[in-house]
Amino acid sequence: MDIEEQVRYAAIDQICDYYQTLNQRPVKSEVKPGYLLEQLPTSPPAKGQPFNEIAADFQARIMPGITHWQHQKWFGYFPSVVTFESILGDLYSSSVTNPGFNWSCSPACTELEQVVTDWMVEVLGLDPVFRTSGGKGGGIIGNSASESCLTAAIAARERALRYLASQESKTLNGLGHDGAAGHVTQSGTATPQTAGGPTAVPLSVREKHTKNLVMYVSTQTHSVGSKAALILGMQCRALPVHAPDYSFRGDVLRKAIEEDVKNGYIPFFVVGTVGSTSSGAVDHIAELGEDYPTAFLHVDAAWAGVAYALPEQRKPLRLDEVNKYADSFCTNMHKWGLVGFDCSLFFVRDRRDLTEALDITPGANIQAYLRTKEGDSGAVIDYRNWQLALGRRFRSIKLWFVLRGYGVEGLQAHLRNGIEYCEQLTTLVKRNASFEIVAPPILGLLDFRLITDPKAEDPELNALNAELMDRLNSRPEVMLTQTVLKSVESEVYCIRFAIGAQKTTWEDVEEIWHVVEQEGAKLLGEWKQKQVAN
Amino acid sequence: MDIEEQVRYAAIDQICDYYQTLNQRPVKSEVKPGYLLEQLPTSPPAKGQPFNEIAADFQARIMPGITHWQHQKWFGYFPSVVTFESILGDLYSSSVTNPGFNWSCSPACTELEQVVTDWMVEVLGLDPVFRTSGGKGGGIIGNSASESCLTAAIAARERALRYLASQESKTLNGLGHDGAAGHVTQSGTATPQTAGGPTAVPLSVREKHTKNLVMYVSTQTHSVGSKAALILGMQCRALPVHAPDYSFRGDVLRKAIEEDVKNGYIPFFVVGTVGSTSSGAVDHIAELGEDYPTAFLHVDAAWAGVAYALPEQRKPLRLDEVNKYADSFCTNMHKWGLVGFDCSLFFVRDRRDLTEALDITPGANIQAYLRTKEGDSGAVIDYRNWQLALGRRFRSIKLWFVLRGYGVEGLQAHLRNGIEYCEQLTTLVKRNASFEIVAPPILGLLDFRLITDPKAEDPELNALNAELMDRLNSRPEVMLTQTVLKSVESEVYCIRFAIGAQKTTWEDVEEIWHVVEQEGAKLLGEWKQKQVAN
Repeated sequence: MDIEEQVRYAAIDQICDYYQTLNQRPVKSEVKPGYLLEQLPTSPPAKGQPFNEIAADFQARIMPGITHWQHQKWFGYFPSVVTFESILGDLYSSSVTNPGFNWSCSPACTELEQVVTDWMVEVLGLDPVFRTSGGKGGGIIGNSASESCLTAAIAARERALRYLASQESKTLNGLGHDGAAGHVTQSGTATPQTAGGPTAVPLSVREKHTKNLVMYVSTQTHSVGSKAALILGMQCRALPVHAPDYSFRGDVLRKAIEEDVKNGYIPFFVVGTVGSTSSGAVDHIAELGEDYPTAFLHVDAAWAGVAYALPEQRKPLRLDEVNKYADSFCTNMHKWGLVGFDCSLFFVRDRRDLTEALDITPGANIQAYLRTKEGDSGAVIDYRNWQLALGRRFRSIKLWFVLRGYGVEGLQAHLRNGIEYCEQLTTLVKRNASFEIVAPPILGLLDFRLITDPKAEDPELNALNAELMDRLNSRPEVMLTQTVLKSVESEVYCIRFAIGAQKTTWEDVEEIWHVVEQEGAKLLGEWKQKQVAN
Repeated sequence: MDIEEQVRYAAIDQICDYYQTLNQRPVKSEVKPGYLLEQLPTSPPAKGQPFNEIAADFQARIMPGITHWQHQKWFGYFPSVVTFESILGDLYSSSVTNPGFNWSCSPACTELEQVVTDWMVEVLGLDPVFRTSGGKGGGIIGNSASESCLTAAIAARERALRYLASQESKTLNGLGHDGAAGHVTQSGTATPQTAGGPTAVPLSVREKHTKNLVMYVSTQTHSVGSKAALILGMQCRALPVHAPDYSFRGDVLRKAIEEDVKNGYIPFFVVGTVGSTSSGAVDHIAELGEDYPTAFLHVDAAWAGVAYALPEQRKPLRLDEVNKYADSFCTNMHKWGLVGFDCSLFFVRDRRDLTEALDITPGANIQAYLRTKEGDSGAVIDYRNWQLALGRRFRSIKLWFVLRGYGVEGLQAHLRNGIEYCEQLTTLVKRNASFEIVAPPILGLLDFRLITDPKAEDPELNALNAELMDRLNSRPEVMLTQTVLKSVESEVYCIRFAIGAQKTTWEDVEEIWHVVEQEGAKLLGEWKQKQVAN
């Protein structure tokens, strides 16, 4: 690390320059597939190279292939905001790198995460049961909403199996869990031996019931749900929703559950969404959370959850229902929340749902090197038992830096900006009769489509809008994303306008909307000419 | 980002100062549980605070709770080396943050990963089939060896189920895969409908066989194996090994498989280890890889795999066997490989094993926003289909910076340093009759224990060494880790001395060994006095 001042500052200077000149670049990278593969050597160098050469190559070769998610004209997918405070937080994290699996790996790493996740419970208005300091629930920072949902699904499966095991042992002999065999066995044969382990579910119960466990999402749930099912090899029903609000309702879930139960299936996991990716739909959490003994309710609010920081958004986003019914809750600070990727907050109502599914150490001499005095005493949290992987990054620093650097009011001001611009944009879209808003605007997200006339059929409009999207995609200054809103009533291709980058101004929104209007008018003109010609 | 020069450089200056003064600190943090919880406020500030206050708090409050994995006297767990090149690479990555799930998120992000994982195939001497540019296999950078092993297990399960499905359809009517229902269904009822999807395994096959699928690890396999089983809710056998080399042998596996198959179980996944965590054991990969039609062999070389960069280590570490038999292979650059956490390399022989298990998009309109022209055309890799989560960090930059900054020779020199010190240490330990080496030294790892006399029984010696470890743990300048080596013959508590930090010198190794000798001599004296007294 004894490098010269010049090199020491080169990277940070380049980064500052990048942000100062970002507005002069198009938002989208214009490279073609293979652009970098063609430029770089197929082998690494034998001898080390000076840093200034490497840094120059970053600018010359990497930068052209970067799509600028921090650009003030970023309106694609969702925002993925990073701030200087977050970058510096991550820089400190890299400098004191450690795998963080146990408290003792670096006590600050575990304890700062406890502090800032508790802070976020307060910022978001979550029920105090989700605070780690309360001793029952708790928060953890992971890499993505997918990981959070998968973790919740595993916790849910084990909770359901423990419940089923307890029901069976009550029925049979009232023995409870004692003597149950874990499914990880130390043995040279196929006969399961007692190996203890957190998941003290008898193998017979696991074998009998796992295949009948079913999870429920809606067709609007993000792939976090269906991917968890793929990963776990479990059954997942994607239930239908209705236009125009596309929310997951209790009656649909109840009907599916009743039919499934009748057929011998066991509902174990439900994913409710606050702010779906396609249209920002807010599911009816209370309806989804109604009691079913073995079902675990995970609320995925990856994008919209951070808006609970605004008191005025809590009711429309059904915070009270989350607080009452959710077994777990996820929101990503690395989307709209000013913290760079990755910083996914995952809260659980009962931390034992995690530790009883994911702790590998109890009773197992084979992982003796993972045990510590502090962990064994129960005085500390070893986050490896709350998550899928063993190692983990020190992600809490960047969140701490951002919360302190902006304060709660700074975060709120940033969120309100995006919401205000979206309201203004909605007014503009409504004014243009060639466009139609296809789902209720929410927070910084607006879905719309080009229309020919009010009686046009969806298939025709879908083709028209796919063509519009193609044309918009070919313009490097436009970054928007398409989606398909599927409901019982219809299947609608539309364009998402997602506002929330930190530097976005109203003028940026207006400028891109005008590009959409122009491209739309041009396309509509061509379409009408074709109609006449036919 | 328009902050003043002074703040701009403060973080990087503090980090350079940290590394320049690191040797003056004890390696271990001396804080007690709760040290930070007591110091920080329970709520975040309402207003933003200046960066210099935050940075000062990092030094005053966080730093005392940091265990210094970069310290030159780091001999615990495994090394977790970070270099300035890696830190700067991560800094660039933070600055162009993006979720990286598709090629189009930032083409450079995907393509640089292809280039550097291909470079690593060459550096490590892996078979060219593992190169992404070959079109069949490929490499990806993940967060941990746990994630790699879990991903391999999922790929293995789906491959086994596809095989079983093909066998059944051959038997029944020779229909093949067409018309098979995925297990993610879009439906309001429990009747699975054809939803396409990558995992075109009929539900009936999944239901029938999943519970009988068994994975195999040894008692020395890292928790990556048993945790994957916990997560997937599948059966896992931890098979016994023999002292003194503690390697997983084919005869033990064969016997277990034969018995299991006789009882209706189906072996689907075997984890072989190159360099176990406890003692650096190298499993007999060729023996484990012998044909069993549905078994997938994953080789976990999290720590030792990077040593394949040294041609002289390839034979003892059985590289040829890995190249011939492994379906997938993992090594962590973030351990001994000069790249900061996280940078876990995961290679597969056939990328379809990943995409057929993990791709969520085909045929599903519900994730329309994830589809891109480039992805649909097959011209690019969308890494979301090779991994568990959707989003991902731009990890290839730091690996690129390190490989270029050090060159292959720089990496080799670093690795050879650690190996040489370990050989010298082995000589010293052998000279002291009060200590015994309990497993063959390998690379930078030596396991030893204090002994009373050659005939002493293990339980007594285990208690003695646990006491020695306690005493060593109480000294802040000593960072060593204990383990328990379990074999058919014995259960041996011992102390691991793991060398590999970048700044470690021979004098550091010698100094800490002398501390161990002194504490050992003192303890042995007390023990002998007690014997006389009794």
